[in-house]
Amino acid sequence: MKKGKVSNAVIRRLPRYYGQLDSLYQVGVVRISSSALGKAMNLTASQIRQDLSCFGEFGQQGYGYNVESLRDEIAEILGMNQGHTAIILGAGNLGRALIHNFQFSQNGFRLTAAFDTDPAIVGKSIAGVPVYSIDQLDEYLAGHPTSVGVLTVPQTVALTTAQRLIAGGVKGIWNFTNIELGIRDEGVVVENVHFADSLLALSYLITPRSSENSEE
Amino acid sequence: MKKGKVSNAVIRRLPRYYGQLDSLYQVGVVRISSSALGKAMNLTASQIRQDLSCFGEFGQQGYGYNVESLRDEIAEILGMNQGHTAIILGAGNLGRALIHNFQFSQNGFRLTAAFDTDPAIVGKSIAGVPVYSIDQLDEYLAGHPTSVGVLTVPQTVALTTAQRLIAGGVKGIWNFTNIELGIRDEGVVVENVHFADSLLALSYLITPRSSENSEE
Repeated sequence: MKKGKVSNAVIRRLPRYYGQLDSLYQVGVVRISSSALGKAMNLTASQIRQDLSCFGEFGQQGYGYNVESLRDEIAEILGMNQGHTAIILGAGNLGRALIHNFQFSQNGFRLTAAFDTDPAIVGKSIAGVPVYSIDQLDEYLAGHPTSVGVLTVPQTVALTTAQRLIAGGVKGIWNFTNIELGIRDEGVVVENVHFADSLLALSYLITPRSSENSEE
Repeated sequence: MKKGKVSNAVIRRLPRYYGQLDSLYQVGVVRISSSALGKAMNLTASQIRQDLSCFGEFGQQGYGYNVESLRDEIAEILGMNQGHTAIILGAGNLGRALIHNFQFSQNGFRLTAAFDTDPAIVGKSIAGVPVYSIDQLDEYLAGHPTSVGVLTVPQTVALTTAQRLIAGGVKGIWNFTNIELGIRDEGVVVENVHFADSLLALSYLITPRSSENSEE
């Protein structure tokens, strides 16, 4: 792997490369040129070559990429083979939606537990995932080193729960609470899921413009 | 508003500008320089000036931006004052999480109805939002022109539901199903929410690198 800083924009495109290559692989495509891959992803061929050059040498001049091996190399770069684990904090509607419908394992994560305060579900399991009391969180983390905490708790307890996750040694927090956690330089990465940003971009795109063609 | 095509990257930053300016306004900041705004958002001052120049003249040389008026102008650009409406398709866990917790109104949308197949909830309302049978969708859209359909149905019916939304005249689909709808050039904008891309970026960021310093 090459030295040097990888820009946030490139990091954001890596999962899209992975998804696109995996789709191509699933439908039987063996080989693809950077220009064809670019076309499918709305990027230029040179953008793709430049992005991938951050991580080493891929493909052969004039011969394109082997879809399966490039997909696998990007999976490796993304850390999908690291055995990452995740726990869900808050098994309300959103937490449950993720437990039932989000394919953690397809993204290289093992979902090991959920935590909630509701006595009606604590001690049971949801879709095979055991639900513990939030009071057991610190003890659980001490015994089960965990990569990522998925934060789907109510906003009022978002920050305190995040602090317990950090004290318990998680490496990342996947934050759905729309609370700015303000965590920096503690060796913990916070990935915020901002539904609002997505809806506002859609709002922009469906709003008629008088003198402008904004689309694409 | 200036003519010319606004890049996707700029469109994606607009909601972040809005959010940042609104936070500043809430805590009483009246005026901010492009460099201070940039610092708060991890962008350069010239990037911010360039982004905003797509939409006209803002701020005064050497004097910065008025926080409230820039926020309001960006809200206008984002279409937050257009009276957009939204309906939710599929009131399962994710649909319910959005009904209960997502602030549609704060983002310029009025959530007018939800649709589901479950007889236990059809005819009732969730957090004040009426739940109709999915069989009533076409009739509803005919009588209630709707800006955006929020697609939280099971994957198996994602495409057919999207087609009914398009036939019913929606302008945008906020797609949470992780199904590529493949809708183009029908005058309908699809905004995909890809949870996986977000988790994979987090996976990348928490994965140790041997010879690289990727972090910000």
